[in-house]
Amino acid sequence: MVTGESVDTGPTQPDVAVVGGGPIGWAIAWRCATRGLRVVVHDPAPGSGASQVAAGMLAPVAEAYFGERELTGLLTESASRWPGFAAELTEATGVDIGYRTEGTLMVGLTADDLAEARRLWAYQQGLGLPVTPLRPSQLREREPALAPRVRGGALAATDHQVDPRRLVPALRLAAERAGAVLVAEPVRRLSEITAGVTVVAAGCGAAALTGLPVRPVKGQVLRLRAPDGAPPGFRHVIRGYADGEHVYLVPREGGEVVVGATVEERSDLEVSAGAVLRLLRAAVDLLPEIAEYDLVETTAGLRPGTPDNAPILGPLPGHPGVLVAAGHHRHGIVLTPVTADLITDLVTGGGGPEPLLAPFRPDRFDDLPGGVGVTATSSTFQPVTEVDTWN
Amino acid sequence: MVTGESVDTGPTQPDVAVVGGGPIGWAIAWRCATRGLRVVVHDPAPGSGASQVAAGMLAPVAEAYFGERELTGLLTESASRWPGFAAELTEATGVDIGYRTEGTLMVGLTADDLAEARRLWAYQQGLGLPVTPLRPSQLREREPALAPRVRGGALAATDHQVDPRRLVPALRLAAERAGAVLVAEPVRRLSEITAGVTVVAAGCGAAALTGLPVRPVKGQVLRLRAPDGAPPGFRHVIRGYADGEHVYLVPREGGEVVVGATVEERSDLEVSAGAVLRLLRAAVDLLPEIAEYDLVETTAGLRPGTPDNAPILGPLPGHPGVLVAAGHHRHGIVLTPVTADLITDLVTGGGGPEPLLAPFRPDRFDDLPGGVGVTATSSTFQPVTEVDTWN
Repeated sequence: MVTGESVDTGPTQPDVAVVGGGPIGWAIAWRCATRGLRVVVHDPAPGSGASQVAAGMLAPVAEAYFGERELTGLLTESASRWPGFAAELTEATGVDIGYRTEGTLMVGLTADDLAEARRLWAYQQGLGLPVTPLRPSQLREREPALAPRVRGGALAATDHQVDPRRLVPALRLAAERAGAVLVAEPVRRLSEITAGVTVVAAGCGAAALTGLPVRPVKGQVLRLRAPDGAPPGFRHVIRGYADGEHVYLVPREGGEVVVGATVEERSDLEVSAGAVLRLLRAAVDLLPEIAEYDLVETTAGLRPGTPDNAPILGPLPGHPGVLVAAGHHRHGIVLTPVTADLITDLVTGGGGPEPLLAPFRPDRFDDLPGGVGVTATSSTFQPVTEVDTWN
Repeated sequence: MVTGESVDTGPTQPDVAVVGGGPIGWAIAWRCATRGLRVVVHDPAPGSGASQVAAGMLAPVAEAYFGERELTGLLTESASRWPGFAAELTEATGVDIGYRTEGTLMVGLTADDLAEARRLWAYQQGLGLPVTPLRPSQLREREPALAPRVRGGALAATDHQVDPRRLVPALRLAAERAGAVLVAEPVRRLSEITAGVTVVAAGCGAAALTGLPVRPVKGQVLRLRAPDGAPPGFRHVIRGYADGEHVYLVPREGGEVVVGATVEERSDLEVSAGAVLRLLRAAVDLLPEIAEYDLVETTAGLRPGTPDNAPILGPLPGHPGVLVAAGHHRHGIVLTPVTADLITDLVTGGGGPEPLLAPFRPDRFDDLPGGVGVTATSSTFQPVTEVDTWN
């Protein structure tokens, strides 16, 4: 026993503790560690959340829905950062994250489907987004595998894709190479954490940690594989309406095709016969050759949904030193670069007030029943001003 | 090193070596061991073949197809042995094998489906089989979960079911309790085996061992589960035609529903999107509540098919001391009792010539191109006349 001597109490307090080892958490950890901050990431099972199920569409255009103009702005901004982000990540890690730029074809199977789709495309064009209507013959020139009865479509050339199951390990590798450290244990209360700044990037888990209105939104997704080791017989992401069902098909180099997704206000992880039936029927109606593909995986995941479908980004009211980067709902993958950049700027105090963030602050829910109930002063945030290198 | 002394060369030669640890193999082993024979069963992975995928319908009536009159006779005979066989097996092992006697409802969704089904039912009735036509109101009285648009049906009250995933372990337990011994290694050639009699009960593997025309016939099957731990919302086995698709649904006490099955001239084990789509669509069309069930398993298995869809039972031409019990195709579970009884009689020489066996002898394929090419004398068979108890 050693007495009367200086005892090593372990590593000094980190500058940043990130709660959640999904794409958002690791990207923030990577960015912060690259700026010289000492970063720990808390997650008992990193990368096991919604990102394992996500298709990885980077689709601000196709995902621009009525009444979500501010979200569309953030999606567009983040998508524009993706090429540089992907290049930087591949440079840092050597990992191929499956970033593909063939663009997205939006299609309607029946006249009714096409009419519904056209309303949305008109809205998207009205926002100045690059949507190019295509006649059936033009569609089939681009993708001969489309069903002959597809009535029409449009190209969103700037809507790209990435493979989330490659992305998350790559982000972790980049973060760890920059010095971030994983603590593979659950965080049950924010008070357990000692760090200069705590970033809650815990997806659905953010609700219990912060009281913010993040709720699970179940999504069921299929993974198919083209037969005999061939690549899929189409190269664009296909998003379509087929007899009223909305479905997407995301082709990957290795032969995988992701088919999704249900949107259900449920929190279980069961795969239901009805969901698989609806997804497969719509997929096969749009691309008949899908019937010959192997069905290799059926999965359900939980998206972190919010009351306005937009993420929650910024200081947690009433908790000095705590930032939130959660509630990304259907948009976690596309929003990873902008979220990481904006949160890192907040952590380091660089950049001053950021207008992009304003619509997404946690205090926007204060008026909700059960809102976190804060005052303007309680959501002030003190950035990490002293930056020491850790390694 | 021991020299000049008597060396123990291991156990004495068994009376019976069974190649294949599926339901047929273990049932033969059980019957033979119960008669006091020394039995070994050779299988590197017992119970891992077609029986793992099989639904377990004991359905000689519903499976009585045009042009298969002799097979129908064998199916009927075996089904009539099932109640006693099941009771004996449960008595010997204490295992609940899921034997259920609610009977089978055969239904047609559309007028065309019903017309097709009625042709078959008339044929079955013409054979004297118990098929009772039911009006839609009578159908729904028996099974309120049936879709309102089901046009008509019939009851095959004597077509029962068993759970193959419970049956095979129970048969193995019974055989081992009676003294049979497993050798968990593959048999590549019959000449590797030393035994009084060798019984080839190797399913699709029988082809390579015997040269007989047994070919793999792929079947894809789904396993669903009623939500929230409830039992399925129907009690009969349902077999139906739904927009030209043939599908069956087998409900089990524990909540499982088996939905099958494709019949494909292929030997791969991939699950295809098209097969899952067709099975789910037909199942949901007939029983809409199936859409709410969990999809818990998608599997493909290989049935041991033969040129006339009937099993191969009896002496292998040109191989004295070798019996075949293979090629059971879609009927392995229902045919287990009669196969075990008839083969055991052949092994022990009891019972004399058996007219039931005559249509299923291996030498019926001699005229086929590539047939095993035997003479009448080469398919004589010498039973085990000396019966020693092994244990």
